[in-house]
Amino acid sequence: MTVHDPRAGGHLADAPPAGGPPAARPRSFQEMWADLRRIGRDADSGGYRRYAWTGADAECRAWFREQAEARGLAHETDRNGNQWAWLGDPTAGDAVVTGSHLDSVPDGGAFDGPLGVVSSFAALDELRRRGAVFTRPFAITNFGDEEGARFGLACVGSRLAAGQLTKEQAYALRDADGVSLPAAMEAAGHDPETIGADPERLARVGAFVELHVEQGRALDISGDPVGIASAIWPHGRWRFDFRGEANHAGTTRLADRRDPMLTYAETVLAARREAELAGAVATFGKVSVEPNGVNAIPSLVRGWLDSRAADQATLDTVVAAIEQAAKDRAQRDGVDLAVVRESFTPVVEFGHALRDEIGALLGGRVPLLGTGAGHDAGILSAAVPTAMLFVRNPTGVSHSPAEYAAEEDCVAGVLALADVLEGLACR
Amino acid sequence: MTVHDPRAGGHLADAPPAGGPPAARPRSFQEMWADLRRIGRDADSGGYRRYAWTGADAECRAWFREQAEARGLAHETDRNGNQWAWLGDPTAGDAVVTGSHLDSVPDGGAFDGPLGVVSSFAALDELRRRGAVFTRPFAITNFGDEEGARFGLACVGSRLAAGQLTKEQAYALRDADGVSLPAAMEAAGHDPETIGADPERLARVGAFVELHVEQGRALDISGDPVGIASAIWPHGRWRFDFRGEANHAGTTRLADRRDPMLTYAETVLAARREAELAGAVATFGKVSVEPNGVNAIPSLVRGWLDSRAADQATLDTVVAAIEQAAKDRAQRDGVDLAVVRESFTPVVEFGHALRDEIGALLGGRVPLLGTGAGHDAGILSAAVPTAMLFVRNPTGVSHSPAEYAAEEDCVAGVLALADVLEGLACR
Repeated sequence: MTVHDPRAGGHLADAPPAGGPPAARPRSFQEMWADLRRIGRDADSGGYRRYAWTGADAECRAWFREQAEARGLAHETDRNGNQWAWLGDPTAGDAVVTGSHLDSVPDGGAFDGPLGVVSSFAALDELRRRGAVFTRPFAITNFGDEEGARFGLACVGSRLAAGQLTKEQAYALRDADGVSLPAAMEAAGHDPETIGADPERLARVGAFVELHVEQGRALDISGDPVGIASAIWPHGRWRFDFRGEANHAGTTRLADRRDPMLTYAETVLAARREAELAGAVATFGKVSVEPNGVNAIPSLVRGWLDSRAADQATLDTVVAAIEQAAKDRAQRDGVDLAVVRESFTPVVEFGHALRDEIGALLGGRVPLLGTGAGHDAGILSAAVPTAMLFVRNPTGVSHSPAEYAAEEDCVAGVLALADVLEGLACR
Repeated sequence: MTVHDPRAGGHLADAPPAGGPPAARPRSFQEMWADLRRIGRDADSGGYRRYAWTGADAECRAWFREQAEARGLAHETDRNGNQWAWLGDPTAGDAVVTGSHLDSVPDGGAFDGPLGVVSSFAALDELRRRGAVFTRPFAITNFGDEEGARFGLACVGSRLAAGQLTKEQAYALRDADGVSLPAAMEAAGHDPETIGADPERLARVGAFVELHVEQGRALDISGDPVGIASAIWPHGRWRFDFRGEANHAGTTRLADRRDPMLTYAETVLAARREAELAGAVATFGKVSVEPNGVNAIPSLVRGWLDSRAADQATLDTVVAAIEQAAKDRAQRDGVDLAVVRESFTPVVEFGHALRDEIGALLGGRVPLLGTGAGHDAGILSAAVPTAMLFVRNPTGVSHSPAEYAAEEDCVAGVLALADVLEGLACR
């Protein structure tokens, strides 16, 4: 039984909250999952389609606001469209903040993002049950447009706040229908004039902790329900343009061909081989072909490489080896190759002080693990002391309707987050 | 200098025709090329986009009718949208017919199709210059929708006439925008109710000769400007569905992946290898990926194999070996494979009697060659004595804006076609 199952029984927060002046009874852990299960789910795929500034996104935002108000938290949406639910004085400084995001990739799973937000509210409920008294300002957040599914750039809300994305750059973003980010914001009722770096807000945050479902199997292999992030691997995207010559697939002698599909295929296999050798990951998940006709040798095959590794040197080695394999084969195929690095994020090493403090609060039994996925916490770590907790994912599957975490592990995550927040904010 | 160059000087038919009651001076060989050069050409790619029942198609049809009427030929469009320009009594039987098509693949070249139509009119002009007297009915044709670029099925006009495509099957064809073939016909002013097998019309044809630019380099290698077709190779299309598991490209361990892109890549390389071993051709020119995201391991990669060989047994061997290689790799990748044969055309062996007669008319100096491309002549050969002439293509490039034939070879093609028509229809 999983928390994703609306029939799941209750473990946490089934009683009314112990403190605060709620507008209505806060929804229990299971009720929150049942609420979210209904938003933006595609009936055919079973996956979620919660894209920034769409109707599904608005439903998620309304739900977040209801959760905040039911718990007596002061709700606000910041200049960049991120939601904050405050307990205590937001302007006092040194706040402890937790949260994640509610948007999804196309046909995403139930946990990536929502697990962190739901667990934040459930952890607050748990602390109230414990009778904990907050000595620092506290907030729960929902960062906007983390997945970048609509406008192609991830972590837009946190990047804007941290000054890693300028207003001008954000204004240039377009979705697949040509709608610009500011137009989409405006249509959703958010004033796009206000977006941009928000250092005053970030300066008030003393610690940010993001809980997230693991997107790999490290905890499953180590046998732990919860882990602490050590670092986010450096990662990048490279576009490989293989240009050959369009020709008739039925009549052109093999010897006369300049077929870029062959070069692409060799490069796909080289990427897997080089990643395996280096202990990295490398993936060609997206390809575009011209003219893409059954009886036409392609003139152009464009493939996108996503590669990540534990450190920069390894990543450089892997990508260089893939490029070399592509070049060698391109020569043999009479194909022209151009490689463009489309994006790159250096390694994010989470601060050791907060990481060690959290480890101690969890009794020192919790493993440290690196991750290949980007997160708002990684963006914020440049400006704010930041840490992440991961909850076990028994299959490692993520960005898929089959994404899964066991209910008992989700509960362990809530309790661990409550322990961390109590230690940071209630002493 | 090529006939595709409107600055090209004239070699043929610069003088007014010697016979017939033309409505206006027939356009010269070069003028006909200059006319066609303006129709349906994409300014960016430089290639032609003349799709069935579109505005560009209507312009081509109007041009054909003008050429017919300028030469005193009786123009008619048959029940299936094919154009005929008659000299003599269409109902007398035992007619000699020549022609090709004017539609194109996406961004096609200038010669595939139009070379046969332009050369037919130019050959008639040449015969009139020679003072030849027709003793059999004669017609020039423009078969509709030969390339199948819009509705996905090639040779629709000739297939309908020959009863190889039923009215019901044709009515089920849809273009990429969901427009049905009958709706497109109707919008272009052709009554779709009339389409279907037309045996009476074909029974009046005693011989059909199609001249076409070669779509390979056999004539370039043998050093001949013109050749005669021996056969059209058997060919087919197979769809390979590789199903894996969508997952996060940054966080999923290589060992936990079921990545169908790897299986696809191995199969692409196997296709080339097996075709090389067997002296056949095999091509993956079209691919579709789900979800096709840069940071997503695909759940599905769908690739289309086009394969052709000189005989059925060789083709069977090649395709079976490619399927086996795909299966072996699929097992290793944890990928499910399904292979569907989407279309298949058996070998077309052109009748030896007409072929030998044409060879003799050309002085026995003309090489015989097989071809991997389908043609209306291949469809009609089941119902009518049929032959094909090929004109040298020095690069072999076809279905591309770079498709090319030298002007002197095009002229040699016109003279050879005139010799053949004179021998068949004027003695």
